[in-house]
Amino acid sequence: MANDKKLVAEITDMEKDFPQWYTDVVKKAELADYSSLKGCMIIKPYGYAIWELLQRQLDDRFKETGHENVYMPMFIPESLLQKEKDHVEGFAPEVAWVTQGGENELPERICVRPTSETLFCDHYSHVIQSYRDLPKLYNQWCSVVRWEKTTRPFLRTTEFLWQEGHTAHATAEESQTETIKMLNVYSDFCKDVLAIPVIKGEKTEKERFAGAKNTYTIESLMHDGKALQSGTSHNFGDGFARAFGIQYTDKNNELQYVHQTSWGVSTRLMGAIIMVHGDNSGLKLPPAIAPIQVVIVPIAMHKEGVIEKAEELTARLKSVARVKADLTDKTPGWKFSEYEMKGVPIRLEVGPKDIEQNQVVLVRRDTGEKQVVSMDGLEETIPALLQEIQTNLYEKALKNLQENTYPATNMEEFEDILDNTPGFVKAMWCGNRACEDEIKELTGATSRCIPFEQEEISDTCVCCGEKAKYMLYWGRAY
Amino acid sequence: MANDKKLVAEITDMEKDFPQWYTDVVKKAELADYSSLKGCMIIKPYGYAIWELLQRQLDDRFKETGHENVYMPMFIPESLLQKEKDHVEGFAPEVAWVTQGGENELPERICVRPTSETLFCDHYSHVIQSYRDLPKLYNQWCSVVRWEKTTRPFLRTTEFLWQEGHTAHATAEESQTETIKMLNVYSDFCKDVLAIPVIKGEKTEKERFAGAKNTYTIESLMHDGKALQSGTSHNFGDGFARAFGIQYTDKNNELQYVHQTSWGVSTRLMGAIIMVHGDNSGLKLPPAIAPIQVVIVPIAMHKEGVIEKAEELTARLKSVARVKADLTDKTPGWKFSEYEMKGVPIRLEVGPKDIEQNQVVLVRRDTGEKQVVSMDGLEETIPALLQEIQTNLYEKALKNLQENTYPATNMEEFEDILDNTPGFVKAMWCGNRACEDEIKELTGATSRCIPFEQEEISDTCVCCGEKAKYMLYWGRAY
Repeated sequence: MANDKKLVAEITDMEKDFPQWYTDVVKKAELADYSSLKGCMIIKPYGYAIWELLQRQLDDRFKETGHENVYMPMFIPESLLQKEKDHVEGFAPEVAWVTQGGENELPERICVRPTSETLFCDHYSHVIQSYRDLPKLYNQWCSVVRWEKTTRPFLRTTEFLWQEGHTAHATAEESQTETIKMLNVYSDFCKDVLAIPVIKGEKTEKERFAGAKNTYTIESLMHDGKALQSGTSHNFGDGFARAFGIQYTDKNNELQYVHQTSWGVSTRLMGAIIMVHGDNSGLKLPPAIAPIQVVIVPIAMHKEGVIEKAEELTARLKSVARVKADLTDKTPGWKFSEYEMKGVPIRLEVGPKDIEQNQVVLVRRDTGEKQVVSMDGLEETIPALLQEIQTNLYEKALKNLQENTYPATNMEEFEDILDNTPGFVKAMWCGNRACEDEIKELTGATSRCIPFEQEEISDTCVCCGEKAKYMLYWGRAY
Repeated sequence: MANDKKLVAEITDMEKDFPQWYTDVVKKAELADYSSLKGCMIIKPYGYAIWELLQRQLDDRFKETGHENVYMPMFIPESLLQKEKDHVEGFAPEVAWVTQGGENELPERICVRPTSETLFCDHYSHVIQSYRDLPKLYNQWCSVVRWEKTTRPFLRTTEFLWQEGHTAHATAEESQTETIKMLNVYSDFCKDVLAIPVIKGEKTEKERFAGAKNTYTIESLMHDGKALQSGTSHNFGDGFARAFGIQYTDKNNELQYVHQTSWGVSTRLMGAIIMVHGDNSGLKLPPAIAPIQVVIVPIAMHKEGVIEKAEELTARLKSVARVKADLTDKTPGWKFSEYEMKGVPIRLEVGPKDIEQNQVVLVRRDTGEKQVVSMDGLEETIPALLQEIQTNLYEKALKNLQENTYPATNMEEFEDILDNTPGFVKAMWCGNRACEDEIKELTGATSRCIPFEQEEISDTCVCCGEKAKYMLYWGRAY
């Protein structure tokens, strides 16, 4: 059993050093590894299996809402990137430039896409002619590159995987409806599949996406009290359409500009899963995205009938859950730690005594609770329990979010919260950029969003004391 | 009805100009489009939906054979690419080089992956220590870049989508077994899913992948008599392991090099689907990868009950097929051409007379055959017919392959075949590179493979007349 302790001991406590705990979980749960190129990560089989489950369920929701997948090139010629002024200013400083193709210098630099608005716009300008061609509801799954200085697996990497939806509509109303619809698809997905509660709201002008008219966001709260922007949805109005000349003839035969949106989530969500649910034993995976939902660990494997029973249970449960029996020669204790680290929602232990009594020992990863359960009817017990764990993880996370969201009516309270009980700070704001800048300067917190659910905490701006316009969420953020 | 003729007339006959026919189908069936960057294509929704169906079914087969998906970075530092001598020589002339990141010149050029052997090897050298770590059976789905001079959608593009499997094994026998196993996964997949028959065999030394000990291939035959290399599987032996220092301690505690494989198919398969099955009305999709398997076209839509019946049929068939009713205001004739162009396997026409008589008019895309079918029991008729179409497309393609494969015992016959009845040429070969080069020089054909199924056409080399060692397949190729 010496091994067990060692395995567990290798993870830093999150209370002691949260960033180190995070890195430990990423490595020990075998989610990702560093590559030989700084800032680029390797997503390992277990991490990628989680991503695939997440991706498939989110993609289903895109298709249910009428979206189609496409694939655009990974390269953007410099001249194309420059077509929309704000956009290029936002992205040019952080792109990777290809200057040589084969043995030749290229006549024009091309960048590896940091995001694909310009490519979609260029395409839309060719394929949209009439109102009959609208709406265009496209999405793509791909990787993008942003030349980041400091990187951390999943949270900020030079290359990352994501999806980017890009839509074009006939009217301003339609593009606004789409923008909010996709924000809701994200927040429902986070709730139902990732068991992560989010705050929905609009970004301030300062925090808007480069080239957007409005940016909406879902913000989640990590275990260390820091915020994570988990997904964004942008309404571009007709700004890109004017820059790229995307026009259609309407029913009255008049030329109109289209109205556009874009929206995306990325492998950052993997970081959210780790930091919202994890504990000092490692990951805790919501069953909906757990590559292994049930692990069967045989006890006293050398005893007659134990392996057979583990295999029998695996076969029985295969149709109701993603189940795996670990029949390797590692000790049970080692396996317990291993699958706790990997966040497997349910562990079943089966030994000679259990077989005799027609029972299994069942351990929940979310609560650590251990119970003895009859082998009969496991086909019903297990799916019901997986559902319960899914719900419980959400409720725990919601409670954590609520308990760590604090109102502040003056800057002393504001700073006190961030220093002593980190979490979201709710505070009134006059709407001026000067106050937003000053608060960031003073506290290191950034405005997360103007939440859709507004409260009137006081009637003056927390910073300048002038009349307040909105309640804002603030937080130190990833 | 003027529109119908126009739509059909816009496609060039394949007998008249095959390359133009191909381009027409790609555009008119809305599979892909050109992008503003030369050589890069946009995969449009209909094309991407086919790719997704293909990808999911192939991925299932990878997982059934024990493989796990991962994601490696898209960038390779120049020093890493150079570690295996043959490999870098093969790829360096055609890679895209990133030389600037953000505002800075990079200290070392990095290339956009043309293939990822070097990245997997680098990773394997870190994670493989003991025989317990073997085998590693990894795959990834991604895009790769090769700076090509002449490009054609799907067949040869600067960037393309593919999967690349990379495995590491304890022994030479195991890596050879894996190499052949994956070649068989490909050929079974081509047969069962894409309805494409292939020739399986080994590449000659000349045609081997850069750095491989043996390369195996599946070769298919297009409608114009040209060959298409449709997938390859490589056994690397321990060559890469020695270059990258990938060693493990075996059960006797001795250090050994691993033995590796890699294997891949790409969006080229989309080109094969078009050119193996298509005709002068457009695509013909095998039902297994058809995004729409059944299209319902209402006739005299303004008549009472027609739209309702089309919707009712759609709802009924939804659980047994991918079905779509086209209720737009285009003419039936326009819709017939449109869905023929898109290769939809079955069309159902429903008009007032059909409703009266409780029937539908059913048209098969593979044969053009038109039949009147009872509305009762369509839930059984349709799936059975889809299966029949799937089989029929394969059999037709197989017949075409067989009828266009010719033995040649001398160079006159060889050239005569290629010039007058293009297809595969089967010919004996002495095994010398000089003859292989000479045949290519004389005929423009390349050796496709040494097929697993050998025949003894004669006992002398078709080129030099010396004693023959193998029968080779030859062809002009994409």
